[in-house]
Amino acid sequence: METFNITIRANYADTDQMGFVHHANYAKYLEFARWELFRSLGLTYKSIEEEGILIPVIDMQFRFIKPIFYDDLIRISLKMQLIGSTRLLIKYQIFKDDDLLIHKAETTLAFIKKTNKRPCRIPDNIRSLFEN
Amino acid sequence: METFNITIRANYADTDQMGFVHHANYAKYLEFARWELFRSLGLTYKSIEEEGILIPVIDMQFRFIKPIFYDDLIRISLKMQLIGSTRLLIKYQIFKDDDLLIHKAETTLAFIKKTNKRPCRIPDNIRSLFEN
Amino acid sequence: METFNITIRANYADTDQMGFVHHANYAKYLEFARWELFRSLGLTYKSIEEEGILIPVIDMQFRFIKPIFYDDLIRISLKMQLIGSTRLLIKYQIFKDDDLLIHKAETTLAFIKKTNKRPCRIPDNIRSLFEN
Amino acid sequence: METFNITIRANYADTDQMGFVHHANYAKYLEFARWELFRSLGLTYKSIEEEGILIPVIDMQFRFIKPIFYDDLIRISLKMQLIGSTRLLIKYQIFKDDDLLIHKAETTLAFIKKTNKRPCRIPDNIRSLFEN
Repeated sequence: METFNITIRANYADTDQMGFVHHANYAKYLEFARWELFRSLGLTYKSIEEEGILIPVIDMQFRFIKPIFYDDLIRISLKMQLIGSTRLLIKYQIFKDDDLLIHKAETTLAFIKKTNKRPCRIPDNIRSLFEN
Repeated sequence: METFNITIRANYADTDQMGFVHHANYAKYLEFARWELFRSLGLTYKSIEEEGILIPVIDMQFRFIKPIFYDDLIRISLKMQLIGSTRLLIKYQIFKDDDLLIHKAETTLAFIKKTNKRPCRIPDNIRSLFEN
Repeated sequence: METFNITIRANYADTDQMGFVHHANYAKYLEFARWELFRSLGLTYKSIEEEGILIPVIDMQFRFIKPIFYDDLIRISLKMQLIGSTRLLIKYQIFKDDDLLIHKAETTLAFIKKTNKRPCRIPDNIRSLFEN
Repeated sequence: METFNITIRANYADTDQMGFVHHANYAKYLEFARWELFRSLGLTYKSIEEEGILIPVIDMQFRFIKPIFYDDLIRISLKMQLIGSTRLLIKYQIFKDDDLLIHKAETTLAFIKKTNKRPCRIPDNIRSLFEN
């Protein structure tokens, strides 16, 4: 699957008194980015939940290289791959000023059923996204 | 109903680059305080939701007098009253250094059914909290 | 001053277990909207802070009419007016599906000096935004 | 250094529409826990910042084993160690119902000067905390 890029702007409420975007908020930026990737492929996370599937994060890793400041325009570049039949690995890089790498992250997500919260196989409509 | 008091500490993640607790986070502090008031009366908000009732905020007003800083110990003082058969009004004051009033707020909450999200009468076990 | 409109999408992290956008997050949406209004007028809040002025919220009021759900595209419509020589009043309406009014809010902001945190007169470059 | 334990309660605002505490909020819980560890040793993070040192997170890793639900009382168990002369590694475990391990995490923090945001040696008063 190709790399997907999305640009977002850092909000004031995301900063802390260090003057940087607080580290907890990176997880929100990455979440937003991955569901925009899904949307770009024609499938929204909202519709996935409506069909009874949840995709929580089960593992995440962050490497902070340079801070994000208020009002910065940052580009999140991301790539997904399936892991077996029930998991999804996403790798992220965040860039500023075009090409300055300021952050790297990885998240592993599991597919679970809304009803019993048990792991389930990745639905075919999601699996097929990865086959093109 | 008597005034209830609860003390909380401002977390780092709640600050913004002004060096104050960000104004959006006051709504979280007040929410925490009102459900602790309920707990002190022997009823948890969790158990209310489990019985099929939600109590969302439908109106809120905030008056910021002096800022809250990181690591401040603040005392939230609150009082509740029922409004008719489906609403609850809560008034809050936040104090620092014992008696310095730094914030005033009011929230109106509505009782709704989880199933259809329609307004409903306040359940008797909640109503009875107000009769002592 | 004319009404300014901006559209934003509700993020997953903004929801709570009621299935609605948590009420605290509205304050973040409104903050984002007002600084985008400033940007549209050619002045960023970031540059205002860099010149030594902060504009904290000193009063805010919210009226929740209908909930915002995950992934909703909402339009925030806002209007500003100066209040005397040191304050700014902003009125907001949030719409969904074009014309459905789901939220109303007002925030009052005060101009203060970064150095001493004391109220100050609204700088001329900001005042002039309101004279067209 | 001995293991430090602190118990916190999951707030409603921390949940998302999955009905779990949103994964971004774990970073806030861990931050709270590590500064409470510092407080227990007689040094507050607030006082460290006041002396001109910031301690941002430069690396963090999370392993989600079981969800945290609203109103859960969770115990965060943590251990710190110095890494060279400028970094601090903290390992966290989160338990529910006494002994049920539901989360594991690690954060690496760097000591930097507030004035120039450059790495600096760990101050002696912090270093000495680790020598007992």
